[in-house]
Amino acid sequence: MSAYQSLHDAFQKIHYFEHCLTILHWDQDVMMPEGGADERGRAIGELEALVHQHMCAPEMAEWLTTVSRQEGLTEEQLANVREMRRQWQNSNLLPEALVREQAIAHSRCQSAWSQLRGQNDWRTFCDSFTPVVRLAQEQARIRQAALKTATPYEALLSLYSCGDSVALMGDTFSLLKAQLPDMIKTVSERQRRETRPVLTGNYSVARQEQLSRYVTALLGFDFSRGRLDVSAHPFSTGNIGDQRITTRYQTDDFIGALYGTVHETGHARYEAGLPTQWRGQPVGLARNMSIHESQSLFFEKHIGTTLAFCERVATQANTLFATALTGAQLKQAVCWVEPGLIRVDADELSYPLHIILRYDIESALINGDMTVADIPDAWHEKMQHYLGLGTENNYQDGCMQDVHWPSGAFGYFPSYTLGAVNAAQLRVAMESAVGDINGVIAEGDLSPIMQWLQENIWQWGSLLESQELMRNATGKPTDGQSLLDHFRRQYAL
Amino acid sequence: MSAYQSLHDAFQKIHYFEHCLTILHWDQDVMMPEGGADERGRAIGELEALVHQHMCAPEMAEWLTTVSRQEGLTEEQLANVREMRRQWQNSNLLPEALVREQAIAHSRCQSAWSQLRGQNDWRTFCDSFTPVVRLAQEQARIRQAALKTATPYEALLSLYSCGDSVALMGDTFSLLKAQLPDMIKTVSERQRRETRPVLTGNYSVARQEQLSRYVTALLGFDFSRGRLDVSAHPFSTGNIGDQRITTRYQTDDFIGALYGTVHETGHARYEAGLPTQWRGQPVGLARNMSIHESQSLFFEKHIGTTLAFCERVATQANTLFATALTGAQLKQAVCWVEPGLIRVDADELSYPLHIILRYDIESALINGDMTVADIPDAWHEKMQHYLGLGTENNYQDGCMQDVHWPSGAFGYFPSYTLGAVNAAQLRVAMESAVGDINGVIAEGDLSPIMQWLQENIWQWGSLLESQELMRNATGKPTDGQSLLDHFRRQYAL
Repeated sequence: MSAYQSLHDAFQKIHYFEHCLTILHWDQDVMMPEGGADERGRAIGELEALVHQHMCAPEMAEWLTTVSRQEGLTEEQLANVREMRRQWQNSNLLPEALVREQAIAHSRCQSAWSQLRGQNDWRTFCDSFTPVVRLAQEQARIRQAALKTATPYEALLSLYSCGDSVALMGDTFSLLKAQLPDMIKTVSERQRRETRPVLTGNYSVARQEQLSRYVTALLGFDFSRGRLDVSAHPFSTGNIGDQRITTRYQTDDFIGALYGTVHETGHARYEAGLPTQWRGQPVGLARNMSIHESQSLFFEKHIGTTLAFCERVATQANTLFATALTGAQLKQAVCWVEPGLIRVDADELSYPLHIILRYDIESALINGDMTVADIPDAWHEKMQHYLGLGTENNYQDGCMQDVHWPSGAFGYFPSYTLGAVNAAQLRVAMESAVGDINGVIAEGDLSPIMQWLQENIWQWGSLLESQELMRNATGKPTDGQSLLDHFRRQYAL
Repeated sequence: MSAYQSLHDAFQKIHYFEHCLTILHWDQDVMMPEGGADERGRAIGELEALVHQHMCAPEMAEWLTTVSRQEGLTEEQLANVREMRRQWQNSNLLPEALVREQAIAHSRCQSAWSQLRGQNDWRTFCDSFTPVVRLAQEQARIRQAALKTATPYEALLSLYSCGDSVALMGDTFSLLKAQLPDMIKTVSERQRRETRPVLTGNYSVARQEQLSRYVTALLGFDFSRGRLDVSAHPFSTGNIGDQRITTRYQTDDFIGALYGTVHETGHARYEAGLPTQWRGQPVGLARNMSIHESQSLFFEKHIGTTLAFCERVATQANTLFATALTGAQLKQAVCWVEPGLIRVDADELSYPLHIILRYDIESALINGDMTVADIPDAWHEKMQHYLGLGTENNYQDGCMQDVHWPSGAFGYFPSYTLGAVNAAQLRVAMESAVGDINGVIAEGDLSPIMQWLQENIWQWGSLLESQELMRNATGKPTDGQSLLDHFRRQYAL
């Protein structure tokens, strides 16, 4: 058997183990009674160890060496080998002792965070958070040495947004932070002369679920190839032919669950549109988190905020909730700008500043230019600077608000804002091909939009690097200006 | 590491892979959208191959040889080794080619069966059923040679009811078939003078589910350590701390789902009561299918038909369905005797005859004393003889009614009736310890019943062989007379 075929088969097998892990995790978050937690943790651990063992098998290294000299591989097969090597490297770079130490530290810190955030107890939290940072620094240095990145932090970024350089992020974020505070001020001042639509009420979970199913179906989600359920934190996961999204309902507000569902539907449609001929192979997977987030944000911020979409949703909501909401009111509510302390509640204009703040801090932290003790002051100052809000002694709404850092995910945040930029950029390119998307949605058939995404993003899997993918789809690499242009149009700036 | 410890660790690992398989199968039957079927089948196949590979690893055979000479093992550890060897033998006896051929033949025949049963097409069905029988005969011969059983059929029986000899089954079934037809006649004649309670109506699924949850909780099922869901065919499965049962609701009848739930709760409580100190080890598993079925039937036929239980359920049902049912009416409905063609709809008195008929045929088939072509006539004649009903040219309600044979499960049926005998026998022993169970249930606290089962059956796992377990619990091995005695009492014969 050729080295390529051996690699192909080995990754195919790993893919099926990952299928099992996907269902074990989904079940844990959505279905499993609490009594199953202990045993489930062990079963997942055993299966993860198995995947790691297969990924680190000595043959794998041999095949990856031999395959470089193998002739006659197609361009797509070579892309597959590139992605195999990437996965292999991610699994093999770290010494097993570090991996195990991290697993324990993350689990400990996450559970400390769950408990201490509500108590605003930063000092005690630091006891378990400091080792998490130290281990992340160690991980970053090992990755940097192997990947030859400019900084340790850049080596972590590539775990989530491989192919998007730290220089690109730096440029993008400089551009955004220079202009967003003024944009926010302008919109806020204008809003003072408007009345904020009141959408609070009592919305039954059953009817909200009907509304979620309605929009999910409108967005082309196929319920014979997927599910919509409830979990504590919304997410999207699944396997080929079986995409699973979750949401959570609050009875005094239906917007949160509704747009959460729209967002997750974007992730799910990307996954469902990946190239079937490459299923089970690394090159058949979604490109990276910046591209993934571009799809969910395209659904949420571009399709979801069009007047045509809001009108359809308002009609449906009025039937379900006996309200008398217009599309314009819904759009106004969804696009209302109001800086606040909490990232996940942030409006579209403030959101990038939340990310940039975290990027500033986590990059300094990982590169050794800041210590854990410096975080609260840095957070407070940046919050003041970017959004005019303070977090002095308010850790729970400040640097303790996200689960990302306690779980060791440094370098993940930037993908949210790169995704927003990519989404805005894709919209411009798409509209030059299919026309104004508000018009397309008003016609009632969203398939031209979906087909464009299928052809330009989904069907490519990981065949192209992220910036090639963006260039092919939009004519240029990720460019922060695209997001600013979108904001100017969306908020008439 | 000692041979015993090596075996211990190897089986612990296999146990976690089985945990994954349990969830993958449950999800497939309860949650998965149809689009996921193809990929799920492959993932399950890959994981099953992994389990098989671990079970057939050469070290395993070595350890099993070495461990026989290892000194200082406790009696419980020796029982664990006995169960390990049994599992190992079941996995290793058959050549891989036969296993693969069977998997294909069963899958093909099951899907032919799903399609052809409704069309009453026995002739076409035989095309895929004949190879299933041929392969089962081959499997039986191989197992017979290794296990030194008297007949090939006995070697298949031990797959489901290990420890219960074919002689025991023969004696039990002779006793039952000699007396049951007359008992049925007597009860039927008496019933002619009674009015059968009419329980048809329109029962909403939501309220039936409430009723199911009520009885499940009454029977001590802990919803923080388990779930109740809906599936096409009711079943019980799960992992440690996470028992999962399913039922199915029909809106014109609530008895079926209700007693199905009671039955599955019995299975689930047995699993939940297995010895925690042996979790993940072969000796910690449920004994065999005859014991498993004794627990579900104890719940369904002994707890479930007491007047006290029926009164509680009737009260609850009256609240939910606005009916005016008495406990006595419910009991009468549940204990109504009416021979019919379909096993799964059979009353308690007819049920063993359905099993004995299948036992007669499948044993002759596997031992080579009957051919596939002989089945319909044999079925018709035995049905006439046992229950006075004919199945001439009616294959769908005759020999094509069950999925067991198309899926290759020959030797499974007897465990249903051995389970019924065991349940009746356990009741007598239990009542001599805790008093009349109707009285216990009337008091409202079922824990003495559950504690007796916990102490006498559940906590033993597979530490004892099935007949030792029965002897310890009841003072004698499985004895068909116990079931006849129960019938005499239950039907005042």
